[in-house]
Amino acid sequence: MDNLKIIELKAGILGQNDRDAAALRRELAEQGTFLVNVMSSPGSGKTTTLVSVIRALGKKYTIGVMEADIDSDVDARTILEAGAKSVQLHTGGMCHLDAEMTRQGVRALGQADMVFLENVGNLVCPAEYDTGAARNITILSIPEGDDKPAKYPLMYQVCDLVVVNKMDTAAYFDFDMERCTAAVHRQNPKAVILPISAKTGEGISALAQWLEEAYRSWKEEAHD
Amino acid sequence: MDNLKIIELKAGILGQNDRDAAALRRELAEQGTFLVNVMSSPGSGKTTTLVSVIRALGKKYTIGVMEADIDSDVDARTILEAGAKSVQLHTGGMCHLDAEMTRQGVRALGQADMVFLENVGNLVCPAEYDTGAARNITILSIPEGDDKPAKYPLMYQVCDLVVVNKMDTAAYFDFDMERCTAAVHRQNPKAVILPISAKTGEGISALAQWLEEAYRSWKEEAHD
Repeated sequence: MDNLKIIELKAGILGQNDRDAAALRRELAEQGTFLVNVMSSPGSGKTTTLVSVIRALGKKYTIGVMEADIDSDVDARTILEAGAKSVQLHTGGMCHLDAEMTRQGVRALGQADMVFLENVGNLVCPAEYDTGAARNITILSIPEGDDKPAKYPLMYQVCDLVVVNKMDTAAYFDFDMERCTAAVHRQNPKAVILPISAKTGEGISALAQWLEEAYRSWKEEAHD
Repeated sequence: MDNLKIIELKAGILGQNDRDAAALRRELAEQGTFLVNVMSSPGSGKTTTLVSVIRALGKKYTIGVMEADIDSDVDARTILEAGAKSVQLHTGGMCHLDAEMTRQGVRALGQADMVFLENVGNLVCPAEYDTGAARNITILSIPEGDDKPAKYPLMYQVCDLVVVNKMDTAAYFDFDMERCTAAVHRQNPKAVILPISAKTGEGISALAQWLEEAYRSWKEEAHD
């Protein structure tokens, strides 16, 4: 197949990006900023979940959010209203963020304890580009179906936490949590799975607890 | 920004692909195969919608389906069971299909009146690559929200038809059909919008009718 040509170009870009991401991760450890990359399909509830997290942790930590969007600024305004620092990153048609774009966003935000990167809604490309984040979260929403981990394997291989959102709609969809859990663990045996509903608040305290524990263990790693 | 480099590489790839797509479109017109490219987010119901279309039109037309998937073959098996010809295209991690990959799929399928390409579940990259299809359909499902046309503008600019799926779940989500229609038409005033539920069968006859009319007008165009 002559799409080999495309793959070779991509390998070069990815290699450079991996080096940029490793450098950014070191810089963020030095300045004490815990960066979390949040990925999902379009419409899985990334922004609503982040608003819930800001409400749960915003008094204890300085939180910043980078909103990656191709063109609009709806989500950044929602985050600002929730009381966190926010910058809108316009990707200009790009399907993912790379480490250099992430660095620009972190600089624009200024000092923060925790920074969340809301990546472009896409289960394919964002998984290929290391952003320099300390942790990766993938949100899967109930209406998308429990077969997504099998269909988008890399996304589930690179994440530390799978948040299963829109649990309040579980009765209306044929979504089997056991099948989902098995499918996630086939890709990634270490992934933690947390069911939530960003709309009703179900599971948000468990998510906040996971984030606080991840923040603490990252701080310890950073000081080693 | 030094992501300019990436964009230049992409422009070269896109230019070559546009030429390949135009050539494939001519070949398909000569052999009488009406190719429809179906795009959406992951989990919007592409396969279920295609199964409904096969049931509605499969006795009148020879139908083939190309299932693009990164790795799995779940959807191709479902399509085979519904009674249509089917090939599974493994993209090997690629986030979209281009015209050359589509050509390989069409050849593998053999003769058919209508061929549907179920593209990779992704609202960004597939919109950038002309597959050589005669028509493009975008499926938007109710749980994803009515703001998707504003957030993924190119996807809505390149499509002829927007199918709004999972209408049976409309009561459980804050989805405003008027807001959706306005958002689609801001990107693409000519786009037709059809609400359906692939699960209950609502709107499938209207979708089948749209496809038959598109097929007939394409045949007339092809003979001009």
